Amino acid sequence: MTAPATSAQAPRHTEPLADAVVDALQALLDGTRRDVRDQCRQLEPELFAPPGQPLDMESHRARVRQQLARLAETPWPAGGFPVEQGGTARYADSVTALEMLGHADLSLLVKAGVQWGLFGGAVSLLGTERHWAMLPDIISGRLLGCFAMTETAHGSDVQGLLTTATYDPESDEIVVHSPALGARKDYIGGAARDATVAAVFAQLLVGDENHGVHCVLVPIRDDSGAPRPGVTLSDCGPKLGLNGVDNGRILFDHVRVPRTNLLGRYGDIDEEGRYRSPIASSGRRFFTMLGALIRGRISVGGAAGAAARSALTLAIRYGDERTQFAKPNSSEEVRLLDYRTYQRRLLPRLAQSYALGFAQSELVSAMDDVLSGRATTEQDQRQLEARAAGIKALMTWHAAETIQECREACGGAGYMWANRFASLKADTDIFTTFEGDNTVLLQLVAKGLLGDYQETFGDLDTLGIIRFGARLTTGTVLERSAVRGLVQKIIDAAPGRPDETPFTTRGSQLRLVRDREEHLVETLAIRLRRVSDSHADAFNAFNRCQDHLVETARAHVERVVLEAFAAAVETCPPGEARSLLDRLCDLHALSTIERHKDWYLEHDRLSPARTKALTATVNDLCERLRPDARRLVDAFGIPEAWLATEMMADHEEGYW
Amino acid sequence: MTAPATSAQAPRHTEPLADAVVDALQALLDGTRRDVRDQCRQLEPELFAPPGQPLDMESHRARVRQQLARLAETPWPAGGFPVEQGGTARYADSVTALEMLGHADLSLLVKAGVQWGLFGGAVSLLGTERHWAMLPDIISGRLLGCFAMTETAHGSDVQGLLTTATYDPESDEIVVHSPALGARKDYIGGAARDATVAAVFAQLLVGDENHGVHCVLVPIRDDSGAPRPGVTLSDCGPKLGLNGVDNGRILFDHVRVPRTNLLGRYGDIDEEGRYRSPIASSGRRFFTMLGALIRGRISVGGAAGAAARSALTLAIRYGDERTQFAKPNSSEEVRLLDYRTYQRRLLPRLAQSYALGFAQSELVSAMDDVLSGRATTEQDQRQLEARAAGIKALMTWHAAETIQECREACGGAGYMWANRFASLKADTDIFTTFEGDNTVLLQLVAKGLLGDYQETFGDLDTLGIIRFGARLTTGTVLERSAVRGLVQKIIDAAPGRPDETPFTTRGSQLRLVRDREEHLVETLAIRLRRVSDSHADAFNAFNRCQDHLVETARAHVERVVLEAFAAAVETCPPGEARSLLDRLCDLHALSTIERHKDWYLEHDRLSPARTKALTATVNDLCERLRPDARRLVDAFGIPEAWLATEMMADHEEGYW
Repeated sequence: MTAPATSAQAPRHTEPLADAVVDALQALLDGTRRDVRDQCRQLEPELFAPPGQPLDMESHRARVRQQLARLAETPWPAGGFPVEQGGTARYADSVTALEMLGHADLSLLVKAGVQWGLFGGAVSLLGTERHWAMLPDIISGRLLGCFAMTETAHGSDVQGLLTTATYDPESDEIVVHSPALGARKDYIGGAARDATVAAVFAQLLVGDENHGVHCVLVPIRDDSGAPRPGVTLSDCGPKLGLNGVDNGRILFDHVRVPRTNLLGRYGDIDEEGRYRSPIASSGRRFFTMLGALIRGRISVGGAAGAAARSALTLAIRYGDERTQFAKPNSSEEVRLLDYRTYQRRLLPRLAQSYALGFAQSELVSAMDDVLSGRATTEQDQRQLEARAAGIKALMTWHAAETIQECREACGGAGYMWANRFASLKADTDIFTTFEGDNTVLLQLVAKGLLGDYQETFGDLDTLGIIRFGARLTTGTVLERSAVRGLVQKIIDAAPGRPDETPFTTRGSQLRLVRDREEHLVETLAIRLRRVSDSHADAFNAFNRCQDHLVETARAHVERVVLEAFAAAVETCPPGEARSLLDRLCDLHALSTIERHKDWYLEHDRLSPARTKALTATVNDLCERLRPDARRLVDAFGIPEAWLATEMMADHEEGYW
Repeated sequence: MTAPATSAQAPRHTEPLADAVVDALQALLDGTRRDVRDQCRQLEPELFAPPGQPLDMESHRARVRQQLARLAETPWPAGGFPVEQGGTARYADSVTALEMLGHADLSLLVKAGVQWGLFGGAVSLLGTERHWAMLPDIISGRLLGCFAMTETAHGSDVQGLLTTATYDPESDEIVVHSPALGARKDYIGGAARDATVAAVFAQLLVGDENHGVHCVLVPIRDDSGAPRPGVTLSDCGPKLGLNGVDNGRILFDHVRVPRTNLLGRYGDIDEEGRYRSPIASSGRRFFTMLGALIRGRISVGGAAGAAARSALTLAIRYGDERTQFAKPNSSEEVRLLDYRTYQRRLLPRLAQSYALGFAQSELVSAMDDVLSGRATTEQDQRQLEARAAGIKALMTWHAAETIQECREACGGAGYMWANRFASLKADTDIFTTFEGDNTVLLQLVAKGLLGDYQETFGDLDTLGIIRFGARLTTGTVLERSAVRGLVQKIIDAAPGRPDETPFTTRGSQLRLVRDREEHLVETLAIRLRRVSDSHADAFNAFNRCQDHLVETARAHVERVVLEAFAAAVETCPPGEARSLLDRLCDLHALSTIERHKDWYLEHDRLSPARTKALTATVNDLCERLRPDARRLVDAFGIPEAWLATEMMADHEEGYW
């Protein structure tokens, strides 16, 4: 074992530990995209480090606008687009760079995500050749756009949007209109200040027919920055966080744009004014369009993970140095991280951060495969969507809870703005909501788990799902994953029943977590069939399964995340770093199982004696990992300039 | 049953429901201090309503200073002081008024709490006649003070403070000094701008002896506002929240004050320069002094409860009106609060808010009894301290979690500053830390539970506690409470074993919750005795029980809170309001038990079949309470002007 970081030889806390274990861990965490991460780490600190003091809203917006311009000079924005559209098709690099920005000012991350991920992504993925000419200007930031999907009255329910885009054959134009106050586009990043063009999601009406939600490009500002005729813009004003992003509102009063402004890849109007689509079902068409925009969701999850890692680094470095209360019969004060309660609050979350980080890396690779055409089946696409939704939900909740716990763990110091938790908390808070409300996303994941729902793809309302559930005999979990085979081997190698083997047997851990998921999926399918057999009110019947649905999805994602961690341990070369990582994976697996102790007891998977031993094992793991906690956060490789805090500077100067 | 508040006849959401059930519930919640609450409800909204937009730090401080001056004109500040000191001895009224301010701008609450509760409280309770002459000026706000306890290096460990107050017999003065950078007074409300006098906690050195921490009054600013000689003041700058409070830092360089500035009630220096104290043990003296300052802790808990009620009112009114997604085969959209996930997120927290509210009212009455001399035993005082600590911890965590859940439940709208969650979250965040870190407080509560620890009162270090634990044969829970007899009657009336009676039998609920507490206390005592019998390293041995300690305290407070709710139901006159409250109490009791399902299963208190039925019962209660959710929040009686939000105004105007 390595010497504890708390020994007298410990380096100054403002420098990361330089040792082989930290290097090896960082190499594993950085993975195949180390070069992009290192380039991000070298961004000019004076421009990219989080602001040293709170900025007023307008100064903050101006700073972020300036950062965006600088970011446009890097290779990453172009990475998000195919070569034939003027990009460099380095999708994973592009998303990884955004993730790294999650360590800096999150307003910039969101601003960049809107410009290149959402607005640029819509033009690239929903548009056709005639729109791609705009992409060089979008990539370079000469043309700033916004993504006008959410309306005041409809957020999660995108299919229910009220804005209309009506084709007028007389003038060969599309008329974009807000037919009700509730149709007002709301919370739109870029709408308050910088965007000149909006990608507007609206019900497409051609002749007598509503073809469902499509996306139309609508110029909203002229060269002077004034709203275009028929466009009413307003400012959402200050928010809980992310005040460097200029969120605003848009109302359209019969705004006319050329027919060709329709982003028509999945549904277009031809020169004769006829609607044409390669996808017959309007429901399926809608989900295909949304599915194309997966990158935003993946980036939000990535950035949330980065923010959680920043918070953990700050709190663990603090807890590793800060003392409070003397030991019995001694004048030596105890370091916070030596207290069990402290270890219990922070170390399982640290382990979870590693686990989610590995799962996120896997997800980004899967995304790269799909976007670059290496994975082409509908199942690849659907699995990617489910993974992205599930990991986004767990990652953003993890971030919110972890940052809160870290703030509390730093006490009064944690409350001072200069110590970073204020902005980390405020900025990430909305991540649980945007790019898909977590609770809604988990329901989508669960629906996906109920089997190959291809046939019902065009009919995804609740009744459809109930009918679908009724067709199942048992739940089937379809998936393909790079780690799946590896994991199966570990499970097969574990001897006997999970109730008999030591908790630190990886195969038993994996089996316990998988078992829970499978049971939840099966019982959900059975319940939904029963619901369908009865003649109960469809909404009520389905609604009563909602908590089961959410729990099933959570169990599924937890299994996926643990498998990603287990696989990462296997790829780590033998040595001290691997032993440490192995123990951290134990902590993650066992604290996950412990969190669902009630389930394992209720379903007779673990005896009361075993669950008591489980808790003791988790406590023991925390104690054993504590000396390496500092190493484990240093391996995140967050630039020191982005971690500067007053509390640690005070420590350096001898204030504590 | 009453008609659901969602029916077409529902009043405009911006007006509270006016009906007999709401009135009856509000009367019960307001309790015996309805008049004070009503007076607070009538404070000028233009001055006291939360600011309509974020203020920059200096404007915010100025506004709060102005509000404080206006508050000084009300009768409540004087209520916090005995008649012989120039007050009116209406302690409960005074704390209740602060609680009501928890619905307004929490910066004012903290500013007022510092001035009258902490600074004024120190002068009143730690001082002697010679100091009381200042109180009229303190009450009227002509003299503003601060409470300089926490230091940069010592927060929770108040006994470890470094600042020294050395008696100089030559000049008959006390020399206040910061002997190290870590002695810097930190996070001190009032120190950055407004306070002219500090109540400084410091090690009192007389001759060769250190008598432990005492409090000395030190003028820190002259009439022009400039720091006094030897005093270095600085500003903590912006914080996560509470930016209307001017927190600052103080360093003392041999600052001399008259000997009589020592607040000498529990330890004084006489005219001959000799130290005198009515309490021999320095440990016990210290805890007696801290115990006298109990009011701050109670006020923080009260204000946290108010903030949680504000958030619940906003989120439940929103969820009661807001629709999203159409029902199957219908164009009718579903109200958010009709979704099970939504009910599950909000309704158990609403029930918990009621429960904690009743417990807080009981606590305030107990405090009034002690401060006004109606309850005079040491046990009264100690029970009050334990209750105050425990309820503060649970209430402030409840507030942080509930406000977060409410923000998420309002989606993007919840993130807009104009919708209040931003400031509610930010301002209450530190409540889990100040006036005692929650985790530390719960450990104190648990130590108290280990029995009558009078003998070890002067020896409260960890080793002392271990020795103490070793003397116990079983844990004994000593307490006196107004509700105790009533609760025992309900328990006695419940038939059979809890495992056999319906979950809605109140006596069974109470028995289950009490059973968990008793078991945790007993096993903790046994464990501590074993620790003492072994010769393990004292710190490690005790540290390994820390999570058990915290869980025991939590179980204890949960029991106390449930009993307060159960007793309140009994005092409610029969009728519709009582039936509703009864059901809400069921939800609170059963969701509390459900949260500890793992424990009840692990300890064979409930069978797996029973715990499954328990979850079904909680779900069912949520569904049954949903139509009355609006009523239940309206009964909080929060002034409408203090609840104004943009999202509900948008709803009125038809935006959704």
